[in-house]
Amino acid sequence: MSLLIVGTTALDSIKTPNKENPRLLGGSASHAAVAASFFSPVSLLGVVGDDFPEEYVELYKKHQIDLSGLEKAAGNTFHWEGEYEVNMNNRKTLETDLGVIEDWMPNVTSPLNEKAYILLANCAPQLQHHVLKQMKQPKFVVADTMDLWLNIARHELEQLLKDVDCLVLNDSEARQFTEEDNVVIAAQSLHKYGPKYVIVKKGEHGAILSGPSGLFIAPAFPLDSVVDPTGAGDSFVGGLVGYLASHDGDIDDNLRQAIIHGTVTASFCCQGFGLASTTTTTRECINKRVEALSQLVAF
Amino acid sequence: MSLLIVGTTALDSIKTPNKENPRLLGGSASHAAVAASFFSPVSLLGVVGDDFPEEYVELYKKHQIDLSGLEKAAGNTFHWEGEYEVNMNNRKTLETDLGVIEDWMPNVTSPLNEKAYILLANCAPQLQHHVLKQMKQPKFVVADTMDLWLNIARHELEQLLKDVDCLVLNDSEARQFTEEDNVVIAAQSLHKYGPKYVIVKKGEHGAILSGPSGLFIAPAFPLDSVVDPTGAGDSFVGGLVGYLASHDGDIDDNLRQAIIHGTVTASFCCQGFGLASTTTTTRECINKRVEALSQLVAF
Repeated sequence: MSLLIVGTTALDSIKTPNKENPRLLGGSASHAAVAASFFSPVSLLGVVGDDFPEEYVELYKKHQIDLSGLEKAAGNTFHWEGEYEVNMNNRKTLETDLGVIEDWMPNVTSPLNEKAYILLANCAPQLQHHVLKQMKQPKFVVADTMDLWLNIARHELEQLLKDVDCLVLNDSEARQFTEEDNVVIAAQSLHKYGPKYVIVKKGEHGAILSGPSGLFIAPAFPLDSVVDPTGAGDSFVGGLVGYLASHDGDIDDNLRQAIIHGTVTASFCCQGFGLASTTTTTRECINKRVEALSQLVAF
Repeated sequence: MSLLIVGTTALDSIKTPNKENPRLLGGSASHAAVAASFFSPVSLLGVVGDDFPEEYVELYKKHQIDLSGLEKAAGNTFHWEGEYEVNMNNRKTLETDLGVIEDWMPNVTSPLNEKAYILLANCAPQLQHHVLKQMKQPKFVVADTMDLWLNIARHELEQLLKDVDCLVLNDSEARQFTEEDNVVIAAQSLHKYGPKYVIVKKGEHGAILSGPSGLFIAPAFPLDSVVDPTGAGDSFVGGLVGYLASHDGDIDDNLRQAIIHGTVTASFCCQGFGLASTTTTTRECINKRVEALSQLVAF
């Protein structure tokens, strides 16, 4: 089935204690689209500036990502500059230049507005909702978000959630959203905002799904080295939605496997800066790691 | 097979924002022995003072715990007073009175020194080693520890580990011990101190086993309410060793199931103050929760 991903297409400058990585391809939609491409054809909806390197367009194309919805506007591409601490667990934003994405509100036309699976990757809830409202007959809509939008666009996020099938957010965001410290309760109490499915990401500790069939406790793939976790959450949700789009059928029957495939795709993301590791993996490598993960958790 | 558990037998005064619970039965050996009792006959090696309430002796007896190794000495029972914050994740020690355990170095005589499975529940490594050295032919020795001993008895702990088959500690302790932030690497690098098996407890995020067959990633049982986590780690390791002692055979064949049974036993511990919830559960309840957990993680 067809898949549309909207979100940020960005340039990320990522500092770690050992290395500076200026202007890597990043953004929620970039990570999610590349991750999804291992499973399903993907159409990308995004905007870049006139400084966007051609090599990054080539990277999208390498993954057969449909770029008919990738707008090129006059101005700068969204640029994020961040720095990780030694343990790679904490990061701080050094600078953000929204550039051409700041006021971007795209018209979604045929055939993009006919896609069945929609991933509203992390970006402003107003933008996510603007895109979603133009979709003709979405079958399954997933929205990712982050603490920023809870802080500055809570009302818009709540409006969006009424029209979303599945919300994805991390554990600290779930706690902040619900003012509930217990993650299980937090996940369950998010259903009342609209989403039938809620997935709480816990980073190296895996994820929790709450849905009509109850809970699913998903492991993370254990890594002995994390090079750069930037985009891991986007890769997770991209792999997840890509898997669902390639296994048309009952969501409840496929969602656990989708989460596991998203988890494994995200583990590749963590092993290189930006998209460096993700882009060199293959569906076969992903399948092998899914099999390894199922052995690691068997009892 | 026979199981000996040595550790602290204590009175715990546990404050939470809503309740004060003075002088509950606690201590690593108490929690571990009650947890193990659901799986295997248990002999307890410990010391209490002349203030130790008879009702707690009755609680041990209710679980058919062999008390021939429970010494009653003149003085106070080890007393710990702690306070939990609202979210139950952080606790601080308000007061500690070691009492009769301070200089206790028991002679272990027959038949206690002939037990095959030995749990050195959390207490001073000197005491753990003193007991272990008196064992005639232990088949499998598990040692639990805590940050306190890393801080004040690191040398003694390292000496002990040379004679231990399985080390159990939590994630922050594994990081502290190895100065390695990655928990997978930390677990693996602890083998060089002696233990063939290393289990890193991650609280609500489960546990990781590193052993000759590689890693096992164990989930925690999701709880929508944690009343009091005191003793959960002791219950985990008690249930684990109890399970092993009741399934004589190759450790590698049984250890994953043992970890899951320990995990589930610990989940009951968290649902009441002190031993209140653990003591009212049954093997049947534990089995049902193990089955539920296997459904919660299936993919």
